[in-house]
Amino acid sequence: MKSCGRFLGVRAWGSRIFLRPYVQAAQNVLGKDGISGVDVSARVQERPAAAEESRSFAAGMFNGHIHPEQVFPYPSVLTEDQSQFLSELVGPVSRFFEEVNDPAVNDSLQRVDDETLTGLKELGAFGLQIPSELGGLGLNNTQYARLVEIVGLHDLGVGITLGAHQSIGFKGILLYGTEEQKAKYLPHLASGNTMAAFCLTEPSSGSDAASIRTTAHRSNCGKYYTLTGGKIWISNGGLANLFTVFAKTPVQDAATGESRDKITAFIVERGEGVTSGPPDKKLGIRASNTASVHFDEVRVPAENVLGGEGNGFKVAMNILNNGRFGMAAALSGTMKGMIRRAVEHATSRTQFGSKLHQFGMIQEKLARMAVLQYVTESMAYMISANMDSGHKDFQIEAAISKIFGSEAAWSVTDECIQILGGTGFMTDGGAERVLRDLRIFRIFEGTNDILRLFVALQGLQGAGKELKSLQKALSSPLSNSTLLLREGVRRARRRAGLSTGITLQGRVHPELLKSAELAVASVEDFGGTVEELLVKYGKRIVDEQFVLQRVADCAIDLYAMMVVLSRASQSLSNELPTSLHEKILCDIWCCEAESRVRRKLRSLRSGGDGAALFRNLRSVSSALTENGGVVAKHPLGF
Amino acid sequence: MKSCGRFLGVRAWGSRIFLRPYVQAAQNVLGKDGISGVDVSARVQERPAAAEESRSFAAGMFNGHIHPEQVFPYPSVLTEDQSQFLSELVGPVSRFFEEVNDPAVNDSLQRVDDETLTGLKELGAFGLQIPSELGGLGLNNTQYARLVEIVGLHDLGVGITLGAHQSIGFKGILLYGTEEQKAKYLPHLASGNTMAAFCLTEPSSGSDAASIRTTAHRSNCGKYYTLTGGKIWISNGGLANLFTVFAKTPVQDAATGESRDKITAFIVERGEGVTSGPPDKKLGIRASNTASVHFDEVRVPAENVLGGEGNGFKVAMNILNNGRFGMAAALSGTMKGMIRRAVEHATSRTQFGSKLHQFGMIQEKLARMAVLQYVTESMAYMISANMDSGHKDFQIEAAISKIFGSEAAWSVTDECIQILGGTGFMTDGGAERVLRDLRIFRIFEGTNDILRLFVALQGLQGAGKELKSLQKALSSPLSNSTLLLREGVRRARRRAGLSTGITLQGRVHPELLKSAELAVASVEDFGGTVEELLVKYGKRIVDEQFVLQRVADCAIDLYAMMVVLSRASQSLSNELPTSLHEKILCDIWCCEAESRVRRKLRSLRSGGDGAALFRNLRSVSSALTENGGVVAKHPLGF
Repeated sequence: MKSCGRFLGVRAWGSRIFLRPYVQAAQNVLGKDGISGVDVSARVQERPAAAEESRSFAAGMFNGHIHPEQVFPYPSVLTEDQSQFLSELVGPVSRFFEEVNDPAVNDSLQRVDDETLTGLKELGAFGLQIPSELGGLGLNNTQYARLVEIVGLHDLGVGITLGAHQSIGFKGILLYGTEEQKAKYLPHLASGNTMAAFCLTEPSSGSDAASIRTTAHRSNCGKYYTLTGGKIWISNGGLANLFTVFAKTPVQDAATGESRDKITAFIVERGEGVTSGPPDKKLGIRASNTASVHFDEVRVPAENVLGGEGNGFKVAMNILNNGRFGMAAALSGTMKGMIRRAVEHATSRTQFGSKLHQFGMIQEKLARMAVLQYVTESMAYMISANMDSGHKDFQIEAAISKIFGSEAAWSVTDECIQILGGTGFMTDGGAERVLRDLRIFRIFEGTNDILRLFVALQGLQGAGKELKSLQKALSSPLSNSTLLLREGVRRARRRAGLSTGITLQGRVHPELLKSAELAVASVEDFGGTVEELLVKYGKRIVDEQFVLQRVADCAIDLYAMMVVLSRASQSLSNELPTSLHEKILCDIWCCEAESRVRRKLRSLRSGGDGAALFRNLRSVSSALTENGGVVAKHPLGF
Repeated sequence: MKSCGRFLGVRAWGSRIFLRPYVQAAQNVLGKDGISGVDVSARVQERPAAAEESRSFAAGMFNGHIHPEQVFPYPSVLTEDQSQFLSELVGPVSRFFEEVNDPAVNDSLQRVDDETLTGLKELGAFGLQIPSELGGLGLNNTQYARLVEIVGLHDLGVGITLGAHQSIGFKGILLYGTEEQKAKYLPHLASGNTMAAFCLTEPSSGSDAASIRTTAHRSNCGKYYTLTGGKIWISNGGLANLFTVFAKTPVQDAATGESRDKITAFIVERGEGVTSGPPDKKLGIRASNTASVHFDEVRVPAENVLGGEGNGFKVAMNILNNGRFGMAAALSGTMKGMIRRAVEHATSRTQFGSKLHQFGMIQEKLARMAVLQYVTESMAYMISANMDSGHKDFQIEAAISKIFGSEAAWSVTDECIQILGGTGFMTDGGAERVLRDLRIFRIFEGTNDILRLFVALQGLQGAGKELKSLQKALSSPLSNSTLLLREGVRRARRRAGLSTGITLQGRVHPELLKSAELAVASVEDFGGTVEELLVKYGKRIVDEQFVLQRVADCAIDLYAMMVVLSRASQSLSNELPTSLHEKILCDIWCCEAESRVRRKLRSLRSGGDGAALFRNLRSVSSALTENGGVVAKHPLGF
């Protein structure tokens, strides 16, 4: 399964989890014991120009800010030509999946049928983002998203085969490859004659990617590395001829001269010393090949280092960060298919003298499915557009879209099955396969749990940075009295439960003002709570996973609110025929999300019931682990 | 899959859903337009002695009452002998499943392995509740629950094979059989030489069981019936030699002489005219056989009518009602297994330098898994004990236990897989099979959706009855001044947000008083809201599925609170070593359940946001069904 390597940006010192590149920085900023000895509420503070501020919308929320530029108005990046080219691809690709590919056949074959594979190659589906001069279609992220959405609608097993190849398998070459590497490999990869795989996960290294044991030692002559190690759960592992492999290499520190093991990424061709295991048997995405890959003293030319020696961790992380929007797009397609399926059944099946869709319980299911799909789709295309516009700061949003999309698709498909009833459980019904396929999406390429930590910590780091800067600015409180006053008033108002003055007026359509007010209130509440948490925990917040999880949940809900507010506003402004429907989807989401956020934040703030709950949860877990399972004595006594 | 017939007690007139035997009564009681023209809040009312009151705990909650007898103290019914006998069975049955049965083998064979089948027969597992004089083990419901818990822990596919046989396949003979029918069939069924199946579901008749088309016509001589029709998704359908079949028979009304089609249950032996289809391919419980069964002009002797001509609907419903506690018990076992598995992994797997269980996110998962298992187990054995004590009024509770157990087990297993990560997705890991097996439990033997309607409507019927009685009593307001005063004060206090005087003091352990207060407040809130809803909607409440679903959710949460309060109190009183742990499980549950209930009830009461939400959900669903799927225009425009 692609990496199945779960999230990568994490490593351990002692018992602490650090989201390595982010949290170390966060700790430096936060200081060991938080912003101690400073009465934040009573101060008039400066917002120093020097403080680097992320322009990511999600990052801004952690400070209670609304940085509109990535979100409002709903971004649109395609030129007329790009749009035209894409629209000409959508039809044939859709027809191909409707007429040629059969997901049930692939599932039972446990591989993609040959006819499909050949057809996909002919369509150019193996090189969607490879520049056209190197044989690919040269699509940008938005165009790519639209096509993988079609794949996701029809066959996630095929989706993983294609995604493991281009979204992670050779993405490193696109992002970090030298001109020579690109020229040498990309044409073969674009045609699909060479299939790629991403080799990170090892038996003892899943979420903790930094702990890999595969090694690569540079030869004395400097011309090659000898690479040895075993990778597991590699999507396309049994089919690929080219691998992006992560291994530890001794790297000399230029300053100290000391040698330390650091991760390096390599482009490795299948050849002597490279073997792969039989296809793994698994719950879903059976059409895609998953296998272990073993590297036994494989000679890798020095020019096949990818992204520089010792930079492999960053390479791996950026490959994954860059691919996440695609998962959201694919799953948005999956949901569309499941909704269509459910509606079909609900409008044709009669029970109790009525069609199913006439019953409130079915209506609620269908409506909630539509809301989840709308949010996911809105996220996917917002992020792809942000990336295409050159924004570099989309990691939190990309992680949110992966978490949200994978959970939304699971829920939508599960409800589709519930609506289908017995038919949903039967192989012939087809829906059960989709549920099986989907289960891995919450696990691979960063488990949703690890990604929640990432969202929370990345966001908190930014917020902590600002707080620390403000603290420092106290030493010269007269340096910028206007800024000081503004910030002081903002904080004082927030503490008094008043609006800090952030607003979405003028950005959202007037029809959506009520939902926008809910969203703004949530951001203010969120910013205030984050500040309180940072003051309370300081650096120790990185260990507070009960807290971090809730902070992440709030961030996800908040970002989702903003995304649908933006999209529905645009539809209303453009007077789309579906705009009233979109307004309702947006209102449903905002109303419920605001309520969830409010509850979660209240529980986290001083006086909230979070502390007691966390103590109880910890105590239960600890009893279970001591006992090796359920602790309570059976009601019958044995 | 067993009935896969989803819930049975439902039929349609026009576009309305009626939970037939219950709701008709409810409507008579409620009157067409509710308790109109009566100012309930201003009255002093009588609680007439004549009003029949259900002593079911769950039914009582709908009136804001606490009828403790089924719940407090936590019931215990086994005599010393029964306990002894059971404890002697637990060891061998457990060992059998650990040493002989292999769930992975059964799953891949798509049938129960012969060695297991033979072993189960030798153990007496096919006749657990058949009286010993007829060759069975003669277990009561509590003993039965304990053994199916073991089966559920190890292999749900085997569980369904056994359950389809005895929990529904021949349960009708146990409940309604004549002495002759019992003597003729039960010995062969007890030995497992004859396997039984329950034949209700038809292609056009799932949840709407009353709409079956299979017919049986009595011969002119009166000696036999000719039965014709097709049944689908029948567990054991391809293996069984004996079927409980439901068919429509023309029945003459004794009073009017008119002939009407009514459902009759038949015992049908496999023989001429009985054919079954190939095993259905399905998501899970693959070890169990599922097949269509066709009856083509089958001659069924008149003495094989089960429970009387025309009573088949009641027979079917009571079979299912009587079996639901067993599902909760089995799934409690399943959860135990999954928790053990997750703990095993969390205590052995190291990432980031620590064992997984040291991370808060894993701790929260494990703790929540334990809470869900505790609630389910507590429900299962409370209901089995209630049934064994002769209580006849356990249908709401049994339905709650099926809903709760099937959703809890799904969630627990899903989280176990999340903890296992990639291993959880792999066939070899074993957990994915359990997830597959579990999906049908929320669908068959009454979908959880239909059962929610059942819980809500059955409860509302009782509450409506009381309200109607009070209304009638107004005509003679001086008939019982003490009662009038008490009831009047109770309602007035509830409206003022004060306690109505119901209490759990003296019933729960002092350590649990805080949680008990939450539960009591929830019951009062619930009773008050139910009254308001009945006054508002009257008879029309049966169409308000958005409301009914929430009422059911609250009833489930409330009953679950009471059940764990009772069990944990007992453990504390008995000073069990695990009692403090149980107190914490109970506190976690009560605190969160109270909060859910409060929110849901607030949204339903006048001034709540429910109405607006329901309007929105209805609008979205209606747009989807008109459009045949997703409505919103794609963000890219195509």
